[in-house]
Amino acid sequence: MDQLELMSTLSIPGKTKMVLLVMDGVGGLPGPEGLTELEAAHTPNFDALAKRGITGLSTPARPGVTPGSGPGHVALFGYDPMDWEIGRGVLEALGIDFDLGPSDLAARGNFATIDADGNILDRRAGRIPTEEGTRLVEKLRQIELPGVETFVEVVKEYRFVLVLRGEGLHDGLTETDPQMTGVPSLPVEATRPEAERSAELLNQWLAAARELLRDEPKANSMNLRGIAQVPPIPKMPDIYKMRLAAIATYPMYRGIGRLVGMTVLSTGDTIASEVETLKEHWDDHDFFFFHVKKTDSYGEDGNFDAKVHVIEEADAALADILALGPDVILVSGDHSTPTALKSHSWHELPVLLWSDFIRPDAVDAFGERPCMAGGLGHMRHVDFLPLMMANAGRLAKFGA
Amino acid sequence: MDQLELMSTLSIPGKTKMVLLVMDGVGGLPGPEGLTELEAAHTPNFDALAKRGITGLSTPARPGVTPGSGPGHVALFGYDPMDWEIGRGVLEALGIDFDLGPSDLAARGNFATIDADGNILDRRAGRIPTEEGTRLVEKLRQIELPGVETFVEVVKEYRFVLVLRGEGLHDGLTETDPQMTGVPSLPVEATRPEAERSAELLNQWLAAARELLRDEPKANSMNLRGIAQVPPIPKMPDIYKMRLAAIATYPMYRGIGRLVGMTVLSTGDTIASEVETLKEHWDDHDFFFFHVKKTDSYGEDGNFDAKVHVIEEADAALADILALGPDVILVSGDHSTPTALKSHSWHELPVLLWSDFIRPDAVDAFGERPCMAGGLGHMRHVDFLPLMMANAGRLAKFGA
Repeated sequence: MDQLELMSTLSIPGKTKMVLLVMDGVGGLPGPEGLTELEAAHTPNFDALAKRGITGLSTPARPGVTPGSGPGHVALFGYDPMDWEIGRGVLEALGIDFDLGPSDLAARGNFATIDADGNILDRRAGRIPTEEGTRLVEKLRQIELPGVETFVEVVKEYRFVLVLRGEGLHDGLTETDPQMTGVPSLPVEATRPEAERSAELLNQWLAAARELLRDEPKANSMNLRGIAQVPPIPKMPDIYKMRLAAIATYPMYRGIGRLVGMTVLSTGDTIASEVETLKEHWDDHDFFFFHVKKTDSYGEDGNFDAKVHVIEEADAALADILALGPDVILVSGDHSTPTALKSHSWHELPVLLWSDFIRPDAVDAFGERPCMAGGLGHMRHVDFLPLMMANAGRLAKFGA
Repeated sequence: MDQLELMSTLSIPGKTKMVLLVMDGVGGLPGPEGLTELEAAHTPNFDALAKRGITGLSTPARPGVTPGSGPGHVALFGYDPMDWEIGRGVLEALGIDFDLGPSDLAARGNFATIDADGNILDRRAGRIPTEEGTRLVEKLRQIELPGVETFVEVVKEYRFVLVLRGEGLHDGLTETDPQMTGVPSLPVEATRPEAERSAELLNQWLAAARELLRDEPKANSMNLRGIAQVPPIPKMPDIYKMRLAAIATYPMYRGIGRLVGMTVLSTGDTIASEVETLKEHWDDHDFFFFHVKKTDSYGEDGNFDAKVHVIEEADAALADILALGPDVILVSGDHSTPTALKSHSWHELPVLLWSDFIRPDAVDAFGERPCMAGGLGHMRHVDFLPLMMANAGRLAKFGA
């Protein structure tokens, strides 16, 4: 019996409340003072909860493996990221609130600049502003394909989403972005026979799109990446028999939440507005996924102090979250984004779990090094949900 | 190669002696003084062995999963509890020392009260006393079924066991208990075609049984639960090439021992009598499963002090066990039963392993929190047997 089946079998409804507080990319590496971003941050609330709670370190995907946002989040939600891959195109579409159907084929589009020979000069078309992207997307909506509907949607700046809808579409398709300049885009190719027709349709669309934009000064071409369909992922409300809500300032995370069956709550741009949203909807859901984005953004920027500051903001938010009286709270991240690397990394995430039913360990500060001595030891993200459910009194006994 | 195959391949006979000391439900949660039951107990012998030995924490089934006694014990014996489920009916039959044959079909029976329309009023028939249950079981022994033998045995109060014996019986059968009152019992249904005849026979038995008891004031009906056969579990003497003995004061644990191929040694009701039994039979077996029940019983009762006292009794027994000169001893439990929860729980078990060939860690007290820092780290119960075998010099090298 796999974990999802086991959870479906054992889960029971209840009245308890759970909060999964995710600081995106929170894990770091020692900076100039020898402390990680989390260790350097002044976090009286996290530290107090660590003292009352149980801590540890957790691997999101596999040891040594750096996960993208998709795998990091499905793991947080109890799905083995090796079994449930979510294509970039799907993530992008979900992230703009596009209502993807189960057989829709979604791709992330990037406008690009090419020279007269068709070689790529700029893979991001000079990062054109969103208004310009919007004008171009309007143009691309004219393109018609035989037997399928097409949707072209603006994401932001040079990014858009292309969705094909119709019978007989299949994923298993290569990307067109060669990941370098000075060479032409690649054609879409099918990696399995069922996807041949989908590849043809996409190449037809690309030819028409490049023809339409040939006289644009910057965005005279485009690439398609992560062409994919929604995986047939079992929904969390069915597995765990609870009502789940997602609170996130960035579209992609709301999209992943929706994909796994969470109700997406509309919120503002700040952690403070997310806290307000949590308060407003506290009575309506059993489980809240609370996502803090900017720890990751500043990690990617290599901005140590700014990342520290976001962690301190999240620490302040914790006090408000605890004031609501959750029965279970788990604090961690989807992956590490050390400012020293300016990118996602494979490093374990610090984890902090609290309920009335944990065994408090000796750790009294929330940081990567303190958590090495934590009572949870070294665990896997996929075990967060089972542990939260157990602590919430929502798992029946297995076997007699 | 799965673990059992691997062990069958590597195991070699020897003259070493191993003791697996199981304190049922020993794992706990902090009580009023901030200490768990085990931490609060005065355990000079466990602590001294922890100082000489290596310690850790272990998950019996899966993280967050609370195992019943069946899964907890099969895991202790090296079987993945997700692969080897023992039905409730089988456990119940084993629990009254009923000698189950390999194709017997066993069900747990609960007397119930129904109204004139057949709707259940009380799923436990007012918890009738055992003497009344005995009288009713005598009546039910009259029922005859075509082609199979039937056995009806008293368990306790409103609980009984029904066993069908004969050719062509199969499990894969639903329970009759609707788990609520105000509705009638469900029929037994086959979940696979081979079990159709077994379902018919059980429904026939139920109809006859309800007819016989129709005028009873309380127990005028009954439900059957956990209808099952003994799983075709490979036997430990074959896997590990050794003679194993089970010493347990409660029948269910003797039954599980018998099921996996242990010789059951008759013993008394106390830990002291179990120690005497161990001494008497020390020369006759290689491996002793020594089961202490009352840590679990008092955990279920929520009696912190009584659980502490049983742990202290087991600590005293350890001195006698060590005096026999075992080569390997492992001390743990099948699952946690914190008095704070009055039930089995998902929490890890403290583990203490000693032989001449371990690396002693820095832990010098046997308790949940000290074991968080143990040299075994966080492990799984299914790995107890391989580690004990290795420490006993009974596993050959794998590969050249």
